[in-house]
Amino acid sequence: MANLKFDRESTGLLVIDPYNDFISEGGKVWDRVKAVAEANQCVPNMLQVLDAARKAGLRIFYAVHRRWRPGDYETWKYLAPVQKAAWLHKTFEYGTWGGEIRGEFEPQPGEIVAHEHWCSSGFANTDLDLQLKKHGVHQLIIMGLIAHTCVESTVRFAAELGYEVTMVKDATADYSDEEMHAALDVNIPNYANSIVTTLEIVDSISSLQAMY
Amino acid sequence: MANLKFDRESTGLLVIDPYNDFISEGGKVWDRVKAVAEANQCVPNMLQVLDAARKAGLRIFYAVHRRWRPGDYETWKYLAPVQKAAWLHKTFEYGTWGGEIRGEFEPQPGEIVAHEHWCSSGFANTDLDLQLKKHGVHQLIIMGLIAHTCVESTVRFAAELGYEVTMVKDATADYSDEEMHAALDVNIPNYANSIVTTLEIVDSISSLQAMY
Amino acid sequence: MANLKFDRESTGLLVIDPYNDFISEGGKVWDRVKAVAEANQCVPNMLQVLDAARKAGLRIFYAVHRRWRPGDYETWKYLAPVQKAAWLHKTFEYGTWGGEIRGEFEPQPGEIVAHEHWCSSGFANTDLDLQLKKHGVHQLIIMGLIAHTCVESTVRFAAELGYEVTMVKDATADYSDEEMHAALDVNIPNYANSIVTTLEIVDSISSLQAMY
Amino acid sequence: MANLKFDRESTGLLVIDPYNDFISEGGKVWDRVKAVAEANQCVPNMLQVLDAARKAGLRIFYAVHRRWRPGDYETWKYLAPVQKAAWLHKTFEYGTWGGEIRGEFEPQPGEIVAHEHWCSSGFANTDLDLQLKKHGVHQLIIMGLIAHTCVESTVRFAAELGYEVTMVKDATADYSDEEMHAALDVNIPNYANSIVTTLEIVDSISSLQAMY
Repeated sequence: MANLKFDRESTGLLVIDPYNDFISEGGKVWDRVKAVAEANQCVPNMLQVLDAARKAGLRIFYAVHRRWRPGDYETWKYLAPVQKAAWLHKTFEYGTWGGEIRGEFEPQPGEIVAHEHWCSSGFANTDLDLQLKKHGVHQLIIMGLIAHTCVESTVRFAAELGYEVTMVKDATADYSDEEMHAALDVNIPNYANSIVTTLEIVDSISSLQAMY
Repeated sequence: MANLKFDRESTGLLVIDPYNDFISEGGKVWDRVKAVAEANQCVPNMLQVLDAARKAGLRIFYAVHRRWRPGDYETWKYLAPVQKAAWLHKTFEYGTWGGEIRGEFEPQPGEIVAHEHWCSSGFANTDLDLQLKKHGVHQLIIMGLIAHTCVESTVRFAAELGYEVTMVKDATADYSDEEMHAALDVNIPNYANSIVTTLEIVDSISSLQAMY
Repeated sequence: MANLKFDRESTGLLVIDPYNDFISEGGKVWDRVKAVAEANQCVPNMLQVLDAARKAGLRIFYAVHRRWRPGDYETWKYLAPVQKAAWLHKTFEYGTWGGEIRGEFEPQPGEIVAHEHWCSSGFANTDLDLQLKKHGVHQLIIMGLIAHTCVESTVRFAAELGYEVTMVKDATADYSDEEMHAALDVNIPNYANSIVTTLEIVDSISSLQAMY
Repeated sequence: MANLKFDRESTGLLVIDPYNDFISEGGKVWDRVKAVAEANQCVPNMLQVLDAARKAGLRIFYAVHRRWRPGDYETWKYLAPVQKAAWLHKTFEYGTWGGEIRGEFEPQPGEIVAHEHWCSSGFANTDLDLQLKKHGVHQLIIMGLIAHTCVESTVRFAAELGYEVTMVKDATADYSDEEMHAALDVNIPNYANSIVTTLEIVDSISSLQAMY
């Protein structure tokens, strides 16, 4: 394991797409991620990390997918397959429960919700990079959904843009073990400096708190 | 005057910040732009161009400034002077009349409102570049407010990102003639391929319509 | 299979990292990719696609990795694992044979070599997006190395930035079948509109030629 | 005057286009900038700031314009007026003295030269933002040429991307007083937190040195 010493001032927690449609019973995509999510305790682990980060005074950021609205995609000449799927299923429909952040992950005052992203990366076509800079953040702890799409793309973009990334491997989920494996074991290790468990990251973050 | 022949498929009209606070009697900034705006008939001209573009079937895009919300800027370590001013005056306050697009400029179905921008350029930290690409747009006709800040920054960014720009010089306004001059006569001619009047652009756009 | 009809004016071929270090006998990384590369005839297939694209008059673009130079990375506070590896091995060392494009892939006059990229995506921190726009390109045919790093990152970025992507699956290679599988079968299908063979793409491209 | 206290670790000096063609007797553009440049002692002031920054251990960055090479612009469908001019005059021709950085400004080991920019902003389509992040830089001291084009565009982009900017007003030059005025007095004050003289910035920087 690499660096798990964080500087509180320059470290942020990035939570990706904690929508009801993804991680709540009854959500449009929950049935597809449930098996993997429950096997690694994705939701309770995400909550543990969020709680520890808040207690330690880390700045919290949310990368959230475009919530479907009427008219979306209809006039586009070019659509990526993930966008066609989002259009077909109206995932995270604006104004519906599925398009809301799950209650326990509700952003608090002082926490930053970036512009909605249209594809997979939380950075592309949003103000996430700006918000991180405006808060002096260089190091990112990343968790959320879906491992091989939004999470991996956000990790790749973070590395490209110059951030140091720590990935919490049991605070994510996917449609299948194979896709989870492609993201966590094959690809993300090239871009994240550390890939850790919830237990490890909570320990590390909590030690920051003790220092203040 | 350079190219005023537009290809309807690859040309878009970009309307910058047509908020009540800027261009409506009673708006927070109206008193400061009123003299220049009325001298060049900014608002009626903007409406003429918008109307002609809609009739010709050009795709319409809106670049809109961040509407002030509670908490904005408070946690930022670094603020540009324009952002300090926006914070101080709570310009375009979310949920108020001043933060609404002036009625006649209300986006219609199929028209695209980009993510709100935090500084001056309609491209920075938004999905404007993506939306233009998704609609196959290469050439931009630009109008709106304020000439030497948001408009000039958006023109500069458009040129940097590879777009061909036509600026409508009497469909913009500024706080003073000096600032208007700096934008329209000194700087924008380096980045916009054409700087035209409302009359000229309406003529050119209307001829597109006749072709279809 | 999705759209394989290309508009010659708006389609470009993007060749990723055809360096001697990657695809020539004696290159620093060749031994690691040789098995997979030879199994799918990566190099001859890349040549076939390049040749067909040139004959059809498609614009050719090259995305090329940073060639290692003295001083690179030494002062950086944050390095992604792929960058640490590039530093360690001095991959594509500037001024050496390994850091040259393999002879048969030498860019011709009128072909565009983008700025060198520092991580994996050919778009990040380069002028690739600008060059594509300046040439009116919306659709990209992508091939090259390494499938699960530079190729996949470039495909993901292309989709995020609004391009339509066709991936040539037997004109790429990787260190192992598992990594190749993660890229071609698990991840890229979410971002590329078509994943095709050399035979299929050459057929499609060649039909363009006949039309002119 | 605003903040002139810099944190050495997070402050960088950015030198824009110190090419012979701009600032050396005999350079292609020198005759056009000579009057303004000599009136404010641009070149000796730039040298003073650079010297002070090096002594204080600030990281130095160079934003450099595309050096003209055969083939440049010929295949582009869209060109901004500044690019047409660069093409016409073959400014900063690659391989010629005019396209070299003036001797006294030669980058030293450990100093960073960003990718060449194609239009005016040192950030657009280059790795400048990445390099600043990789070195932990948040605050930029900016000087160089030309005030109302490359300098102003770089200042605007810096603000948009989240950097805090200090502009050195007598370490720049322009074709005319009017253009200099548009940049320094009308526009840049909206985006730079401080606009200072060489004397002021050298004083401030030198105090950093004493602290270490």
